[in-house]
Amino acid sequence: MPTAKSKSTESRLVIGFDADDTLWHNEIYYRQAGEKFKRLLSTHQDPAEVERLLAETEVRNIDWYGYGFKSYTLSMIETALAATAGRISGSEIDSILQIGRDMLSADVLLFEHARAALVQLADDHELMLITKGDLLEQDSKLRRSGLAPLFRHTEIVREKSAQTYQVLLDRYGVPTNRFVMVGNSLKSDVLPVVEIGATAVYIPYEHTWAHEYAEAQGRTYHELEHLGQLPALVAGFEVASPGT
Amino acid sequence: MPTAKSKSTESRLVIGFDADDTLWHNEIYYRQAGEKFKRLLSTHQDPAEVERLLAETEVRNIDWYGYGFKSYTLSMIETALAATAGRISGSEIDSILQIGRDMLSADVLLFEHARAALVQLADDHELMLITKGDLLEQDSKLRRSGLAPLFRHTEIVREKSAQTYQVLLDRYGVPTNRFVMVGNSLKSDVLPVVEIGATAVYIPYEHTWAHEYAEAQGRTYHELEHLGQLPALVAGFEVASPGT
Repeated sequence: MPTAKSKSTESRLVIGFDADDTLWHNEIYYRQAGEKFKRLLSTHQDPAEVERLLAETEVRNIDWYGYGFKSYTLSMIETALAATAGRISGSEIDSILQIGRDMLSADVLLFEHARAALVQLADDHELMLITKGDLLEQDSKLRRSGLAPLFRHTEIVREKSAQTYQVLLDRYGVPTNRFVMVGNSLKSDVLPVVEIGATAVYIPYEHTWAHEYAEAQGRTYHELEHLGQLPALVAGFEVASPGT
Repeated sequence: MPTAKSKSTESRLVIGFDADDTLWHNEIYYRQAGEKFKRLLSTHQDPAEVERLLAETEVRNIDWYGYGFKSYTLSMIETALAATAGRISGSEIDSILQIGRDMLSADVLLFEHARAALVQLADDHELMLITKGDLLEQDSKLRRSGLAPLFRHTEIVREKSAQTYQVLLDRYGVPTNRFVMVGNSLKSDVLPVVEIGATAVYIPYEHTWAHEYAEAQGRTYHELEHLGQLPALVAGFEVASPGT
């Protein structure tokens, strides 16, 4: 039974964390921006139609523009042109630019338990941030979150495929049985991690529909309601692993 | 005297390459976009004034928006609003969005010698791409360049400081005396590399003013006119290094 506070090298894990909607709120800022945008265009077009057009534009642009507030701003402008048949005014375009800037300068709002869980886990394990999105934007959010010093490495990647994770583990010399990934996306944080034989912890952002997906996939991973439950789960991994 | 084709581990170098305006053209696309933009606004405003406003807007936005065609597009739209006192039309805004899209879909135009030099060097050394900019955009350009298979690692970083380079070398276990960085920017590719004690090769994009900078800084680095001269320079490093 280990008694020292710091774990031996053998029982140390590398724990990867997704960022947006796993450690801090992200989706709500897009929703708020979308609401402001619909209000702005409401004299030109029905809000429901604006919402439909914006969603369509975003999907069409994702391969070109990628993720983040700049992509969203460009998609809002494109949508505004379509929704008003080009009759959008200069000052309305200016308001759209401002909606975009407000998204970037919004406070980074950590989830409850996020800081405490990370502080506790960083004592015994190596923490990595593994996130998609715009480089500048994620870097800015990490800095403003106050969590940066808790991460040994930060990886902002183009996509989170099984290959992406394998390349990262190879890069840092981490065996798959020592890697745990924590995130709110089955597609990005859970399934590719399970695929390479590592451990995934799913913490859904939207609790209602998440469970259905989990069952549908038929893969083995852990699911928690919030980050406050993570340290206890991880402690269980350590007891079960060989060498401790 | 080594006779085998492949170098021994000891004489293998890790050679980092900047991408934009080192391996392929980049600046010209911004200039072309800027020209189209000025023509588009010429019925509203003097092109010289548009150019001045755009440059001012870009500088003001760089910390917020970062680099790349999305940032440039947003800055063009902001400039158009300022340059026309908000009297820009919807169809003109649409044209600006199209100027931006054209930048992203433009062919990746490799510099002469780029492919041949990299193919030759990849035989004996480990090549890395180390570039700033938008993740999605650089990833797309690398894929379309056809050079991706020649690089062992690709690093798209937020900024190229001495610390950035040191973190990368530590990550991959590369001693500084085995690292060579090649690029067109004294600020990003040369001076921080010299600062950590590694070797830098400067290949200016604009030959006329580059030499003055080089002298002003008083640091020791190599300067070439084009990538075709790189393999011979690197061969010289190997002869001079200990252990061969």
